[in-house]
Amino acid sequence: MATPLDFLDFVDTNKDRFIQRLAQAVEIPSVSGDPAHRHDVFRMASFLESQLKQYGVETKLVDLGTHTMEGESLKLPPAVLGRIGDDKSKKTILIYGHFDVQPAQLSDGWDFPPFQLTRDEKTGRLYGRGSSDDKGPVLGWVNVLDAHHTLKKPLPVNIRFCFEGMEETGSEGLDEFILAEVKKGKDSWFDGVDAVCISDNYWLNTRTPALTYGLRGISYYKVVVSGPARDLHSGVFGRMVHEPMTDLIALMSKLVDPKGNILIPGVDEMVPPPDEEERKLYRNLDYTLEDVEVSAGAKITLSDDKASILMGRMRSPSLSLHGIEGAFYGAGGKTVIPAKVAGKFSIRLVPPQTPGNVDPLVIKYLQDEFAKLGSKNTINVENMHGGKPWVEDYKHWSYEAAHRATEAVYNQAPDYTREGGSIPVTLTFAEALGVNVLLLPMGRGDDGAHSTNEKLDTSNFIQGTKLLGSYLYEVGAGKKA
Amino acid sequence: MATPLDFLDFVDTNKDRFIQRLAQAVEIPSVSGDPAHRHDVFRMASFLESQLKQYGVETKLVDLGTHTMEGESLKLPPAVLGRIGDDKSKKTILIYGHFDVQPAQLSDGWDFPPFQLTRDEKTGRLYGRGSSDDKGPVLGWVNVLDAHHTLKKPLPVNIRFCFEGMEETGSEGLDEFILAEVKKGKDSWFDGVDAVCISDNYWLNTRTPALTYGLRGISYYKVVVSGPARDLHSGVFGRMVHEPMTDLIALMSKLVDPKGNILIPGVDEMVPPPDEEERKLYRNLDYTLEDVEVSAGAKITLSDDKASILMGRMRSPSLSLHGIEGAFYGAGGKTVIPAKVAGKFSIRLVPPQTPGNVDPLVIKYLQDEFAKLGSKNTINVENMHGGKPWVEDYKHWSYEAAHRATEAVYNQAPDYTREGGSIPVTLTFAEALGVNVLLLPMGRGDDGAHSTNEKLDTSNFIQGTKLLGSYLYEVGAGKKA
Repeated sequence: MATPLDFLDFVDTNKDRFIQRLAQAVEIPSVSGDPAHRHDVFRMASFLESQLKQYGVETKLVDLGTHTMEGESLKLPPAVLGRIGDDKSKKTILIYGHFDVQPAQLSDGWDFPPFQLTRDEKTGRLYGRGSSDDKGPVLGWVNVLDAHHTLKKPLPVNIRFCFEGMEETGSEGLDEFILAEVKKGKDSWFDGVDAVCISDNYWLNTRTPALTYGLRGISYYKVVVSGPARDLHSGVFGRMVHEPMTDLIALMSKLVDPKGNILIPGVDEMVPPPDEEERKLYRNLDYTLEDVEVSAGAKITLSDDKASILMGRMRSPSLSLHGIEGAFYGAGGKTVIPAKVAGKFSIRLVPPQTPGNVDPLVIKYLQDEFAKLGSKNTINVENMHGGKPWVEDYKHWSYEAAHRATEAVYNQAPDYTREGGSIPVTLTFAEALGVNVLLLPMGRGDDGAHSTNEKLDTSNFIQGTKLLGSYLYEVGAGKKA
Repeated sequence: MATPLDFLDFVDTNKDRFIQRLAQAVEIPSVSGDPAHRHDVFRMASFLESQLKQYGVETKLVDLGTHTMEGESLKLPPAVLGRIGDDKSKKTILIYGHFDVQPAQLSDGWDFPPFQLTRDEKTGRLYGRGSSDDKGPVLGWVNVLDAHHTLKKPLPVNIRFCFEGMEETGSEGLDEFILAEVKKGKDSWFDGVDAVCISDNYWLNTRTPALTYGLRGISYYKVVVSGPARDLHSGVFGRMVHEPMTDLIALMSKLVDPKGNILIPGVDEMVPPPDEEERKLYRNLDYTLEDVEVSAGAKITLSDDKASILMGRMRSPSLSLHGIEGAFYGAGGKTVIPAKVAGKFSIRLVPPQTPGNVDPLVIKYLQDEFAKLGSKNTINVENMHGGKPWVEDYKHWSYEAAHRATEAVYNQAPDYTREGGSIPVTLTFAEALGVNVLLLPMGRGDDGAHSTNEKLDTSNFIQGTKLLGSYLYEVGAGKKA
């Protein structure tokens, strides 16, 4: 089913109005990680619900309960559910997105007020927190609804929406809700869903659209070394006692080498090496070393081979040392022997790794290495949180539809990518619903999602809206299974 | 010259009044490290000056200029100078002490309001911030003046006082003042000083008075590893780039081993091993492993040999890893690759080590080890501040006088100790005046100077006052050189 021209024309004609709507959304500082902005996340939920309603979507705000943040008990923002279309002859697509954003302040180094959409007329860039992550894509779907409602055209598929307001802060409450909702069977908002589509990630670069079929999992660890009952003065106690920092640094130095190799026996080895076909896939991706250097802001790639670098991110585990809790972290010099220090590190996981099979290796290794130190301090290792990796079958009608839609809108085939990061809800949907999940990005690799000067290019917003709509038409063209 | 009985009686008789004066001093929260309390440090200077004046001391408040703290330009508290006695036939002793204190809040875990002197009637302990460090000892000298003024007795020596209000915050401005003052020769407040006596440290334990003849020096370092232009997301960049934390942790792990041995070639080796006479000195000190365990609150001594432990603190260098600036330090888990991290560590120095001969070894070693890592990140190593170690000749009339005074007051010979920490002004006086410096502690090893529930035992305050007075009499008994 070719995408109808009147829909594509409508999108072009209504560009300014769409940008205006995005500006309204960006002006609501729906920062989920800051209790002071919690009411704005609620405002944003209402804004989004009213948008859906006005285009004929049946909606529901789901109370996800309360949680504690910075010692304060707070109501969680509601999930915004939506339902439109109930034609048994059509496929049903569940769309996920989020309406909360990362924190942002002008003083962080923004060149524009973060909660105001600033359009650069020369480049067409739309600057503002949430423009790309994830208000632009969410409103992309609203634009599609707007077009069909205004043109009085039926949608080519049935759609279910699940938008959340805590994605940037651990998606609290959402997993439980999804699992409970799925159990309702026929009465579930998710009943009859044939595939899930999530637009909450990015192209690999600034040039080539992408379909994303994999995400790394994560296991986040805390290794605590405790010694004295309180912080000690290094003048008085230096070279009298076993210092927890000395032990912790020794342990942390044994986790990963400067080339990125994981030193915990069995962890790297768990992942089978790529075969020739897979290597070819990475060699063919539209990506250069310069792309990494530009986005990292320095020439610090681990290798000069593009395929190695991409495999490092997409199909290898990685171990990063994040920091130490309990040690001196300020400017200046403090002569303290910290009493209790907690090293924080995480491993990004790829299949067949899971927190379940990696955690025991990590914990045993650290305990064994600590025993070798001969210290009188004590150690405790714990997994703080974890999530399994996800790799989808991209030879599926949903990916094929997205492929054809990309070719139609962008006149080029998409890159097939795996992401280094994690979007835990992806796996929840995949497992709970037992259907294919597609990540269909709208923004570019340089959008700076969690950074200063986050932006979305106007062309990505407008062509992206066409892409989302075209994807639905391509799905609709397929036979209902 | 035996200490006159009327002086000793006066001290016993006026015990409650002395404690009352200490209570007045503790009630002034003269925290030098907190801009909000700066006016209290000034109040404390005035309080002390008026005490000196009322007992016949000529005083002067010395303006030490301004400094910047937490971005605020602040007036430095004045040094309080005092002069009493100008008898050419008597020796002249310069007394140093400080009237500022460490920060303290009930919420830090105090069992008593920190800025109120609480007397435990059972144990005789006087709890309060500054009780032992250093308001107790400073007021000990005031008690001696009080007694002689009230009894209309001449002092056995001429006394000069130099009290400062920034000791807990780097003694800013004091070194410059001392050096400039000494240069004035005959017009200097310090003209004619025969020896310096400082009461600003502690017995080794809770039982045996001590004379302290050595302090370690210090060299404080910052090793900075820089990579990306901004913090990166570990999901997106993990195993693509050289991570500064990985490099820094590798470097920090190569500085000191879990047994306390310094791994930088040439540093430990610089210090000659102790001869049999010196070993004997440490074996004979009134000290047990349990003393360390009690004060550290855990059984974490590096060795089970008391002499080794004491030498580790008093006559060996030590290297402590304090922390990392720029890494994640909060609770919870943040998946960041920090862009720029600065490891902080310091080495306590003993003769013949100085920052001058140790710094080049440290800096070159870190640069060489970094080169071996093969990282594309960059490194910078700098010394943040330093001070030379100090060891005094304890076979000197000033120490001999203190020895006799200790035997007279406490009925036991003092321990001769070296301290692991640093009191930089000690070396300034020793070098600028070219005279012997004695550290004559009043408090016990468990006073908790910089900790919660700081205390001074009533007996240490009262016997300590007698000790200070008796020291002056013993000095006065000697011939003026």
